[in-house]
Amino acid sequence: MKSILDEVNYPKDLKHLGTKEKEQLAEEIREFIIKTVSKTGGHLASNLGVVELTIALHSIFDTPKDKIIWDVGHQTYVHKILTGRKNKFNTLRQYNGLSGFPKANESEYDVFDTGHSSSSISIASGLAKARDLKEDSEYIVSVIGDGALTGGMAFEALNDVGSSIKKNFIVILNDNEMSISKNVGGLSKSLAKIRTKKFYRNSNYNIRKICEHIPFFGNKIIRLVSSIKYGIMKISVPNMLFEDLGFRYLGPVDGNNITEVENILKLAKKEVEKPVLIHIITKKGKGYKIAEDNPDKYHSTPPFDIKTGKSLKQIELENNKLKSIKDYSEVFGDYLIKLAKKDNKIVAVTAAMADGTGLSKFKTEFKNRFFDVGIAEQNAITMCSGLAKSGLKPFVSIYSSFYQRCYDQVISDICLQNLPVVMCVDRAGVVGQDGETHQGIFDLSFFNPIPNLTVASPKDFKELELMLDFANTCNKPIVIRYPRGSESLDVKFDKYEEIIKNKVEIIQKEENAQITIIALGKMVARAVEVSNILKEKDINANVINARFLDYDLNNDFIELIKNSALVVTIEDGIITGGLGSNTQNLLIKNNLQQIPLKIFGYPKNFIQHGTVEQLEKHFKLDKDSIAQEILACCQLGRYNSRLIIHILAI
Amino acid sequence: MKSILDEVNYPKDLKHLGTKEKEQLAEEIREFIIKTVSKTGGHLASNLGVVELTIALHSIFDTPKDKIIWDVGHQTYVHKILTGRKNKFNTLRQYNGLSGFPKANESEYDVFDTGHSSSSISIASGLAKARDLKEDSEYIVSVIGDGALTGGMAFEALNDVGSSIKKNFIVILNDNEMSISKNVGGLSKSLAKIRTKKFYRNSNYNIRKICEHIPFFGNKIIRLVSSIKYGIMKISVPNMLFEDLGFRYLGPVDGNNITEVENILKLAKKEVEKPVLIHIITKKGKGYKIAEDNPDKYHSTPPFDIKTGKSLKQIELENNKLKSIKDYSEVFGDYLIKLAKKDNKIVAVTAAMADGTGLSKFKTEFKNRFFDVGIAEQNAITMCSGLAKSGLKPFVSIYSSFYQRCYDQVISDICLQNLPVVMCVDRAGVVGQDGETHQGIFDLSFFNPIPNLTVASPKDFKELELMLDFANTCNKPIVIRYPRGSESLDVKFDKYEEIIKNKVEIIQKEENAQITIIALGKMVARAVEVSNILKEKDINANVINARFLDYDLNNDFIELIKNSALVVTIEDGIITGGLGSNTQNLLIKNNLQQIPLKIFGYPKNFIQHGTVEQLEKHFKLDKDSIAQEILACCQLGRYNSRLIIHILAI
Repeated sequence: MKSILDEVNYPKDLKHLGTKEKEQLAEEIREFIIKTVSKTGGHLASNLGVVELTIALHSIFDTPKDKIIWDVGHQTYVHKILTGRKNKFNTLRQYNGLSGFPKANESEYDVFDTGHSSSSISIASGLAKARDLKEDSEYIVSVIGDGALTGGMAFEALNDVGSSIKKNFIVILNDNEMSISKNVGGLSKSLAKIRTKKFYRNSNYNIRKICEHIPFFGNKIIRLVSSIKYGIMKISVPNMLFEDLGFRYLGPVDGNNITEVENILKLAKKEVEKPVLIHIITKKGKGYKIAEDNPDKYHSTPPFDIKTGKSLKQIELENNKLKSIKDYSEVFGDYLIKLAKKDNKIVAVTAAMADGTGLSKFKTEFKNRFFDVGIAEQNAITMCSGLAKSGLKPFVSIYSSFYQRCYDQVISDICLQNLPVVMCVDRAGVVGQDGETHQGIFDLSFFNPIPNLTVASPKDFKELELMLDFANTCNKPIVIRYPRGSESLDVKFDKYEEIIKNKVEIIQKEENAQITIIALGKMVARAVEVSNILKEKDINANVINARFLDYDLNNDFIELIKNSALVVTIEDGIITGGLGSNTQNLLIKNNLQQIPLKIFGYPKNFIQHGTVEQLEKHFKLDKDSIAQEILACCQLGRYNSRLIIHILAI
Repeated sequence: MKSILDEVNYPKDLKHLGTKEKEQLAEEIREFIIKTVSKTGGHLASNLGVVELTIALHSIFDTPKDKIIWDVGHQTYVHKILTGRKNKFNTLRQYNGLSGFPKANESEYDVFDTGHSSSSISIASGLAKARDLKEDSEYIVSVIGDGALTGGMAFEALNDVGSSIKKNFIVILNDNEMSISKNVGGLSKSLAKIRTKKFYRNSNYNIRKICEHIPFFGNKIIRLVSSIKYGIMKISVPNMLFEDLGFRYLGPVDGNNITEVENILKLAKKEVEKPVLIHIITKKGKGYKIAEDNPDKYHSTPPFDIKTGKSLKQIELENNKLKSIKDYSEVFGDYLIKLAKKDNKIVAVTAAMADGTGLSKFKTEFKNRFFDVGIAEQNAITMCSGLAKSGLKPFVSIYSSFYQRCYDQVISDICLQNLPVVMCVDRAGVVGQDGETHQGIFDLSFFNPIPNLTVASPKDFKELELMLDFANTCNKPIVIRYPRGSESLDVKFDKYEEIIKNKVEIIQKEENAQITIIALGKMVARAVEVSNILKEKDINANVINARFLDYDLNNDFIELIKNSALVVTIEDGIITGGLGSNTQNLLIKNNLQQIPLKIFGYPKNFIQHGTVEQLEKHFKLDKDSIAQEILACCQLGRYNSRLIIHILAI
């Protein structure tokens, strides 16, 4: 059969296609995505779910004049393929290649660089208000999943839009019964009820008759959406939640049926009194059985074997070509189970990240002591404050960049109350291929000024366990941050001093050390590697594990620094207001300001996608670059006479 | 008539009172509050609205075993009076006196220190989950206004609670048709519809008959709440929004009628299958006609004359005992109107703070170009990104401490997209009598690490105007922060250099200056005052207006610093990661680290309520304390040999 995808590069190429051809196109796109993502890794299941929706959107709307905002943005692969990027699709998520998210600098069809959940309706609201002021008339369409809808800001925007915008505004609720993992909450239950109503999609039901029986609610509560022109005779089960907020609710329809989706989009375009919410139901992983059966697992997947669905890494493991390695999330989850067995006050909390944060096993083991609030970080954190206030010990785990979503709650509800909540910060530092919105590079800086808060970061898995022990008994707000993935495979630590609040650990104390390197978290192993390179050049370096962002200088430590010609700090975050900045303050407070200080970390920049190794190399934070930079200082003899802050250029 | 309030000190004293007595008590409490707040200032209208509700809550529930969480917390005056603090009530909002918000350290009846809106249901959710795990059975009640309900985190919590908690959980929606100012949004319209339903409170309506006519929605959509025992026969108009989220919805009832409120509370206590949402309707300002008529104005009021309602300051102004002085908010609002008249791309945005941020006049002048999204900072900021993306120039004004609520949106939606949104930060620095949750002391630290963002702060009103001009043309994300209240009355500036990005302004260049003082925003006037005191002691100081948090050192400036024996920075925020920290980096980058630096600002602490003057004195940031501290350094001769960071002790 002739390939249709070969002929489709832009939305205009869709306009002359018939339904059958679009259906074939959908299948070809699915195959193309599966093939590509099996090599690049990426968000598979959600993209397979929106193939028909995306084709329909670009068929019915006049993009890029009409504007589509993709909530979260990881479901835009089909959109990218249909908007001129098919031929670059093999570079997906690769360094300098296509982003896995919409990027205005990639295409005029990408209206907005989304990445975090629940923002699309607010963005659309701004675009629509600007349009109305200019008296333009383009359509603004936001596509949001049922998971993203649990985020409070989506509600804020629905509430606003429902009373402020009248026409050419469409929210498409892409209901796949999932956020990243299985959905939670009252809204989700309510949507499930709609989906399972026995008359859903039964167009023969005598709708008018029902309506006649309802005295004055009829018109409002059961809306008859009838249009002979579009061949639709559909009852819209009331989702009063949306109607109460001022929306016209249409649906639900089968989102994997191109005709149904196109028809309801056409209908929605006719609405001129209210913003419209279209409820479509799609299947995550659609068309790839293995992903359909495990949509959680294939939400975001590493490269995999198409036939078996097994990740390439898994296959290597099975063939003994690779040693099994845990990641920090797993170590956290497993150890928390151990702690929870001994301490029944421990409870675990997350925000739609049970799998990603390693808490799935905890959830199974302690069903009643596990709380997943869905994509709702604000509620997660403040709920923890209530749990702690009642004497429980909540351990909440959220990705670093999502803590930005609950910053006030950390300040006002945890730290102002001085409550013993353990806030685990997963995916801290540069995380890699998800790019700008997901890099965990701000947390050190934004946690640093908060009173009553201790910020800790372990050098390896074992120290994470020790820090969890410490956190469980410290009875104060505490952050423990750790990166995505594994501990260092090259540097192994064999001793672990007792964890004492704000006390550093001396990892390596060299005779006649010229340099003292202070590092935090995963950068402690890097510091050891750097010191090894320096040693080859006859330069001895002490290595200090800061352990705490706001560490103290004790006497032993002061002695080491006093005898150093250069102090170096290495951190896995933006240097403004981080470890280096705190070190600077400490040196001054302790009358050590004459010792030159060199700070390694990320500059004040957003950081694109790429592997962690590629990004570290780019920002000269790999062991060789750091060592080289230090050596350059030494060779210049500058370390004795100058303080140098190395703000790395991009 | 015998006073009942005289005999009531704790909730137990309410238990034996009859309805008539409680009604009299309500009147006495109103009088007491009006009298006190007319002297202390404070949140008047909202407290007058909840007198009956508070009496009913403490009558029907067994506090403090049963737990009441007050959303926002400024409506707890009645609660304080009824829980042992009547005799201290005259110290309300005074330095070292009673807080205007709940404080766990004041009373065991204050379950949680609230202050920011929309958090109470999350807190209650945590308390209830802990209770259920412990198999306890106390009631958890959260009291939330219809304004606070527009905050997304309230929705996140409703969604969570609706599916996770079954019993002894009550949310009281205190619907007064107002947040701080008139409410906005679809939800508000929906509530208004319920309030005005013609059969509201018409118990003779043949409810059962209606229900019979509704085939299978009847039971769900119209709930007949009937209880002979409590004398209630009420139709609950469906608020499907709440029902859809999993709540039992009861109401609406007249929240200023003690019997009605007590009865519905008793009824709610019986519910064991679902969490309950009780909808009560109260009148803001109830019982004080002047406040009833102007609930906005008396939401938070300065001391006033009871008879006329006029503020004491207003009276002094009228008697020519005081000169009329604008505040920063007014200067901002007025100037934005000027700009907007010339530039039709300018739009203004706020989040339920139109009055407080000085935007009320703009709202009147440019109805279509003004957007108040209600208590919904996340939506406000991200909506601005949509407006800016479409070529408009949004100026959004939000109080400093509420920017904590939209931190991710500032990072991900404004700064990552590098959009020209002008973010005005009102109430920056220490704000005074609202205490911990309202002090704007974190913003410098948390804005500092954000890429693409310029942070500016004007020394006085005129410079605010110049900065608004600058912001309007800079075409990048920018923050302009300014304090509550007036510019300095003692220090007047007469020259204003052109505003250039990151360029400082040299205010005062002294012959043979020993000291260079660098200050930001309102602290520039303080720096001038300090230099005057120093001059009396024969010490000359240069004064630099940093203008920008991340300012550059230009050559002129470097020259000044090089010739100084001490550099001083003064900022109106927490010093961690702020102006002093940036200055330190600059000194090092420019090889000036040998110059001692002394940083003045707030320590890493939460700051209680009090007047700005009292708090500044306490933290030694008044002109005399700063001058004295500098002199102490000079007298010790330390400025030549030491760098001193002055972390002020509390």
